[in-house]
Amino acid sequence: MSPSAALERIRVVLSHPSHPGNIGAAARAMKTMGLKRLYLVNPKSFPDPQAVAMATGADDDVLAAATVCSTLTEALSGTVAATALTGRRRELATEPAWAREAAAELVAAAGAGEVALVFGNEKTGLSNEEVAQCRHWALIPTSDQYRSLNLAQAVQILCYELRLAAVDVGAPPKVSDGGTPASHEEVEALIRHLERAAVGSAFLDPAQPKRLMLRMRRLFARARLEKEEVNILRGMLSSFEK
Amino acid sequence: MSPSAALERIRVVLSHPSHPGNIGAAARAMKTMGLKRLYLVNPKSFPDPQAVAMATGADDDVLAAATVCSTLTEALSGTVAATALTGRRRELATEPAWAREAAAELVAAAGAGEVALVFGNEKTGLSNEEVAQCRHWALIPTSDQYRSLNLAQAVQILCYELRLAAVDVGAPPKVSDGGTPASHEEVEALIRHLERAAVGSAFLDPAQPKRLMLRMRRLFARARLEKEEVNILRGMLSSFEK
Repeated sequence: MSPSAALERIRVVLSHPSHPGNIGAAARAMKTMGLKRLYLVNPKSFPDPQAVAMATGADDDVLAAATVCSTLTEALSGTVAATALTGRRRELATEPAWAREAAAELVAAAGAGEVALVFGNEKTGLSNEEVAQCRHWALIPTSDQYRSLNLAQAVQILCYELRLAAVDVGAPPKVSDGGTPASHEEVEALIRHLERAAVGSAFLDPAQPKRLMLRMRRLFARARLEKEEVNILRGMLSSFEK
Repeated sequence: MSPSAALERIRVVLSHPSHPGNIGAAARAMKTMGLKRLYLVNPKSFPDPQAVAMATGADDDVLAAATVCSTLTEALSGTVAATALTGRRRELATEPAWAREAAAELVAAAGAGEVALVFGNEKTGLSNEEVAQCRHWALIPTSDQYRSLNLAQAVQILCYELRLAAVDVGAPPKVSDGGTPASHEEVEALIRHLERAAVGSAFLDPAQPKRLMLRMRRLFARARLEKEEVNILRGMLSSFEK
């Protein structure tokens, strides 16, 4: 199954969301991570201009395509797995997993059919009846001092983890063409030139050159000098030597 | 260095943020992950009631303690490392790393002193002068179709990754006391009882019992039956046999 196909089988279900702004922000969060299927169970206010405003570029697709249901049972109908976010509620059917592991499990389950990621109301979470329907649980690690994540933020974190679980992101895209690495001889010549210039200016004691040059070697090694850079440095040294 | 001490050495710097709501949401995001040091470079509107509203429980500490600066140079003064978030800008001093790796590197750098995580304006990002000052870059992996993360959402994702890099979260907290696992003999007795009941009700052909019981064994293995559950199932079977 292609990574994007797996992500498209995941329903993000917001149950009884109070704030339409959170709905819009959640839609945007989903779109940035390649998810598309937004389900709203008995939202307090929807459609709503605040949802559109917060959805930004996701307003005409993810938000517009949101499915509104009366109950969680409706929203989960047709799924083969459902994971809900918990804030350390007791008496869940199964032990919660951290968000990263839960996301990986949900993506794996999406190989077999539609799956759901469920979030409860901003203040009250999921009702007891809803809790009873959820078979798997995810927990986002937070500070002990303050655990209250905004609903859309929790959606963003889980969608981010779902994407990373589904897609091999590879190496980050390069932002520059990259210079040509300086050759070994070019760097050695620079080091000799630097030593010569430092002795010539009386900065370096010719009887004790080694320690300073060793420190310079460390710097040059870490810097991964490029040809052009070596040329610039040697040009500067030559000008200082005059 | 303790994990929380490392997180407290990280300055979250928002440069020229346009929307005070994002400032508040960023403060909340920071607090959920144990970060405390918010720096604002030339914010468009601050203080602002929208920032307080979005900060929720972070309004009286993280938000109230925010340091306002005129320039990025001021905000970075005293740091030994600064990583900025990029949206695929070209011509950066170094190649960007994915958020997870960049967070790990920044936490490691926090061992040596104060460090900064820099975010630019919601629409325009960082100015050229600001880009020139940042030595390391982070990129959040997103869908190719839509890359535009809300500023506070980007802050949330990075703070989440910083926390995971700094703190050993261990196993998720258990939510139930856990039942006692059924013993091997108890499960075998259940399987025999089930077979007997299924034969007695003519569901199972006594000449060919094996395939069905194998499927039941798979189910029971996966379920990790507990003593109490075995008792309930055997009681039900007994009632069916009458």
